[in-house]
Amino acid sequence: MTNGAQALITTLADSGVDVCFGNPGTSEMHFVAALDAVPEMRGVLCLFEGVVTGAADGYARMAGRPAATLLHLGPGMGNGLANLHNARRAHTPVVTVIGDHATYHQKYDAPLQSEIEPLAEWTHGWVRRSASVADVGRDAADAVAAACATPGQIATLILPADISWDEGGEPAGAVAPAPAAAADAAVVADIAEVLRSGESAVLLIGGAATGIEGLSAADRIAAATGARSMVETFPARLTRGAGVPNLERLGYLAEQATYQLQGTKHLILAGTQAPVSFFAYPGKPSDLVPEGTTVHTLAGLGDDVCAALGRLADLVAHDTEPRPQAAAAPALPTGPLTPQNWVEVIGALLPENAIISDESNTSGLLLPMATAGSPRHDVLTLTGGAIGQGLPVAVGAAIARPDRPVIALQADGSAAYTISALWTMARENLDITTVILNNNAYAILRMELQRVGAATDGPKARNLLDLSRPDMDFAKIAEGFGVPAARATTAEELADQFRRALAEPGPHLIDAQVPPLF
Amino acid sequence: MTNGAQALITTLADSGVDVCFGNPGTSEMHFVAALDAVPEMRGVLCLFEGVVTGAADGYARMAGRPAATLLHLGPGMGNGLANLHNARRAHTPVVTVIGDHATYHQKYDAPLQSEIEPLAEWTHGWVRRSASVADVGRDAADAVAAACATPGQIATLILPADISWDEGGEPAGAVAPAPAAAADAAVVADIAEVLRSGESAVLLIGGAATGIEGLSAADRIAAATGARSMVETFPARLTRGAGVPNLERLGYLAEQATYQLQGTKHLILAGTQAPVSFFAYPGKPSDLVPEGTTVHTLAGLGDDVCAALGRLADLVAHDTEPRPQAAAAPALPTGPLTPQNWVEVIGALLPENAIISDESNTSGLLLPMATAGSPRHDVLTLTGGAIGQGLPVAVGAAIARPDRPVIALQADGSAAYTISALWTMARENLDITTVILNNNAYAILRMELQRVGAATDGPKARNLLDLSRPDMDFAKIAEGFGVPAARATTAEELADQFRRALAEPGPHLIDAQVPPLF
Repeated sequence: MTNGAQALITTLADSGVDVCFGNPGTSEMHFVAALDAVPEMRGVLCLFEGVVTGAADGYARMAGRPAATLLHLGPGMGNGLANLHNARRAHTPVVTVIGDHATYHQKYDAPLQSEIEPLAEWTHGWVRRSASVADVGRDAADAVAAACATPGQIATLILPADISWDEGGEPAGAVAPAPAAAADAAVVADIAEVLRSGESAVLLIGGAATGIEGLSAADRIAAATGARSMVETFPARLTRGAGVPNLERLGYLAEQATYQLQGTKHLILAGTQAPVSFFAYPGKPSDLVPEGTTVHTLAGLGDDVCAALGRLADLVAHDTEPRPQAAAAPALPTGPLTPQNWVEVIGALLPENAIISDESNTSGLLLPMATAGSPRHDVLTLTGGAIGQGLPVAVGAAIARPDRPVIALQADGSAAYTISALWTMARENLDITTVILNNNAYAILRMELQRVGAATDGPKARNLLDLSRPDMDFAKIAEGFGVPAARATTAEELADQFRRALAEPGPHLIDAQVPPLF
Repeated sequence: MTNGAQALITTLADSGVDVCFGNPGTSEMHFVAALDAVPEMRGVLCLFEGVVTGAADGYARMAGRPAATLLHLGPGMGNGLANLHNARRAHTPVVTVIGDHATYHQKYDAPLQSEIEPLAEWTHGWVRRSASVADVGRDAADAVAAACATPGQIATLILPADISWDEGGEPAGAVAPAPAAAADAAVVADIAEVLRSGESAVLLIGGAATGIEGLSAADRIAAATGARSMVETFPARLTRGAGVPNLERLGYLAEQATYQLQGTKHLILAGTQAPVSFFAYPGKPSDLVPEGTTVHTLAGLGDDVCAALGRLADLVAHDTEPRPQAAAAPALPTGPLTPQNWVEVIGALLPENAIISDESNTSGLLLPMATAGSPRHDVLTLTGGAIGQGLPVAVGAAIARPDRPVIALQADGSAAYTISALWTMARENLDITTVILNNNAYAILRMELQRVGAATDGPKARNLLDLSRPDMDFAKIAEGFGVPAARATTAEELADQFRRALAEPGPHLIDAQVPPLF
């Protein structure tokens, strides 16, 4: 006999989804029990749903296939929404399973009753409620296919408790996701003409194009045509370092991006949207495409962007090779930690094949320069701007790639959002080195308070942007969650602790006392 | 000149809302700056939106008037939803202000862009988007009135950034909330007849009736008629202890409630709904009203329930006095901590006028017995079942009533959800004693796994309900957030630490190693 939960989990595993991050409740108990019936499925406990969904995001960015999440009713989905928002903006495939009350129980308006569909639909993905135990297997296979359709999305399956526990479940075979659309040859040819015209052009790449294949094609195009190839501001997964073409990244600050794009006659988009200001600022433009610039779309989000870049490169850069970045790690600095020198420590000591989960925010402004010539690595960024992503994404990345060292570079204020991710690092003995950039402030908001032109800088406003009184001691917090930790106040201490953390397996945390840049 | 944010905050303060819990972002910077222009408004920083909304819930339960919350865009609202769900189920008035992108910026689909209305509507309250700076003051006054309409609800005001920063704001005067409906005299008379019939009756009270006035009336009715007066399972604020009538509380477990209600011919509801099972269980009823029981509604959620109880008491218990609970604190126990003895320590040492934020879950099963004869106190319970409520509610209660000691009795798994609430306790130097009931397990789920009849109890299932490997050290975590802490393993240690924590102002945490009940 197979109940709904067993059919669901079997189908997920058969469809290539074999990790489930979860924080279950009573309505998910049959799902939990069914994990033992399906040896292929690994269950990973997180202590908060925001960790669950962020881990699923990090997992899929590195594994190239979705994880499942297990959430408890509407409030559990609510807790998971912020990191699902980031996953949505990263175009990460995620299969979200949400337990609901039994079908016949919903009418009683029990305390945990709420609507789940509006929350699921908020993620702009695929949503289905399993209607009978016989359908659960097929629903699960459809969910995986929906999640994996290019460019990747969040597929939510709502699972009433009785459909989970009823007998009569039927596992379904994997469903192939819809294939990515191929680039239109005429569009590619037109854009080749633009590039050959000699007029100033920027090729802005994003999505699936920020791996070695897309970066190489974009760099070949730049080398052959004189166009500038650039990477979108917050790539989901950017490959960098020695041996990889080092493309300029579009800046977060509208002022930066405006400077980078000025004078551009043609803006060619591949796997990304036309750049806009992250926030609105009084009297400043939201649209960052310069006046007089023509925007061309080589490949949209649903297209096979790497293939399109490859075809374009074949047309305009047939004999041109990509220009790999030379190895050039910075020297190890000395003295008290500063926003300038901590990044040099990371750049100097970054191990081969590292994965960086980067939520260093203002403290990390100089990071890309310091790590440009470090050994090849991948960087996972805060795609949707919802803070509290970095530590959960590191958890997921480490589970996806246990063979690679994971480094979480984490701002203090954002770390507090989903701090219990540290516990899962310890529970699963994940090889993650977390460096907290502890400047005792929402430093980015101090900057933003100026940038939006707010009139005052009074004591109450300052109080709301200040994280001192008390200073958070992240070393103690980490030890409380079972992660060995140390505090660094100098570049030497940071280097020493970072080296040791990398040398030992399992999680470590360094509370780096880096003064604010602003 | 007055901008939108200043008009908004001035109106809130003039309407009696003078505390704002917040976690702002760039789109709320003008709101933050405006706090310094309105001396009456106090801003309280929380490090996560779930703390913000839970604190607003605890504040209003104790202050009797709403606090405002300040949230950042859709993801910030998402993070706040779980505790807004609890507030909704508590019928707590909350004024939620959510910053959105500037009106003209929304069409650009910037990374943090999302729909806010569907999330706000999920709370089943009042929702408005400010359409112009001239309207903001009136919108704010309407929001406060909507929040305060009986029985209390969540009023959400969406505030686009440009409407916050534009000049031309006009503060508005307070708007009176719609009055509670008066009890229908005929209904009261009919129910009086039922009570006089001598047939077995239960009077189940909830909502505003669980304070001294409603409890006294319900107890008088019971004393005069032989009906049993009972309190709903999860009251928002229940007054208890010496001098207060001690009404039986309906049990959380369906089996308990069924036992308590069996043989009841008439179930009379006052300010609460007919009891239903918290979750569905295979083969067990969801509706806990026994077959053959007639349900009568004395007062619905929108009615003046205390007045209705008073009128009923006047009819059937004119000369009957309420029966106050005698003072009878338990003796101080000794020996290693157990689920039985830790509650006796609390009962023995509970100070006069305490506020208990109770999210002790399974560890607290015996708490009501141990504190029944302790000095008079208020208990705030987990009304909506979304865990992670206890610490934030304690924050809000302590800000509402700085004259009263606040005691947070907190299960370990739930504590991890919103643990950064400890930081706000330290920042605001709140007189809160937190006792973590640390049993290293989601003990309630171990019980529920059995109760739902899940077939297996395999290693993967057990792993998802286990919080050991590693054990969380809440004393270290608390110190990391700036709260002095200790660990207790015996009843003597707990008593000693609890006494000292109460004697010293400011926050303290005790990590009590209480083995699981199940």
